[in-house]
Amino acid sequence: MQSDKDESFMKIALQQAELAFDEGEIPVGAIIVADGKVIAKGYNQTEKLNDPTAHAEMIAITAAGHYLGSRHLQDCTLYVTLEPCAMCAGAIYWGQVGRIVYGASDEKRGFKSYSEKLAHPRAKFTTGVLEGECKELLMKFFKQLRQKRKK
Amino acid sequence: MQSDKDESFMKIALQQAELAFDEGEIPVGAIIVADGKVIAKGYNQTEKLNDPTAHAEMIAITAAGHYLGSRHLQDCTLYVTLEPCAMCAGAIYWGQVGRIVYGASDEKRGFKSYSEKLAHPRAKFTTGVLEGECKELLMKFFKQLRQKRKK
Repeated sequence: MQSDKDESFMKIALQQAELAFDEGEIPVGAIIVADGKVIAKGYNQTEKLNDPTAHAEMIAITAAGHYLGSRHLQDCTLYVTLEPCAMCAGAIYWGQVGRIVYGASDEKRGFKSYSEKLAHPRAKFTTGVLEGECKELLMKFFKQLRQKRKK
Repeated sequence: MQSDKDESFMKIALQQAELAFDEGEIPVGAIIVADGKVIAKGYNQTEKLNDPTAHAEMIAITAAGHYLGSRHLQDCTLYVTLEPCAMCAGAIYWGQVGRIVYGASDEKRGFKSYSEKLAHPRAKFTTGVLEGECKELLMKFFKQLRQKRKK
């Protein structure tokens, strides 16, 4: 079943998010799947790389283009633990990523809060896959951050 | 005068755009200036790198963060020959780039066609600097492309 497969792939994206967590980065992870195979992975590394563009999705999209030898990712599915921001939605648009599956919504900085038109008109979206786990990891991160700041 | 300085820096961004042109890429160039000094350059390389994220601004922002050892670019000015797209506007937002100067407008894919909110509320914009030259290079590129496709 599609939903079982989506959960399995989202678990891999969550593992990427956990790597970000372990490195003190906002825990967002992404993978890209083509022909049922993971072809690219990425996790948020903006702090480590001093690079505001180093979101999980951006790293995964760059890696997928490199792997496929094409900047067009129509036949790919991007799994990401958090709703993409406007920057990442823009990259998804230019890469023409065929399908996007995300876990938690981001009401503050998610692309939908700007304009749903940011997504490619042919892109298909599935939302809320393992939403609880994706959200929980983010909440754990921000809770720890607040505690550290209090000290 | 600020406008003379802006034109001088935009000329350097245009040289970057010409490098893109020479490599058969859509000719957009960008530089980032801090303390009156060019600290980063970039030109569109999406075809060469098979990377939909490799816009001029993205490459320059990544390079500037690396140079400064910080992902925050509040004290920087980004010069770019074309109005940033939504992806690049998102990167400008996350990088908190203090000032953005661009040449030609992009009515089709420029960030303003989606939402002016994509820009950081504190970012200052100057538009239309060397607009003619920036536009002319783009038009020359698309004219050549159409001629090649006809053959």
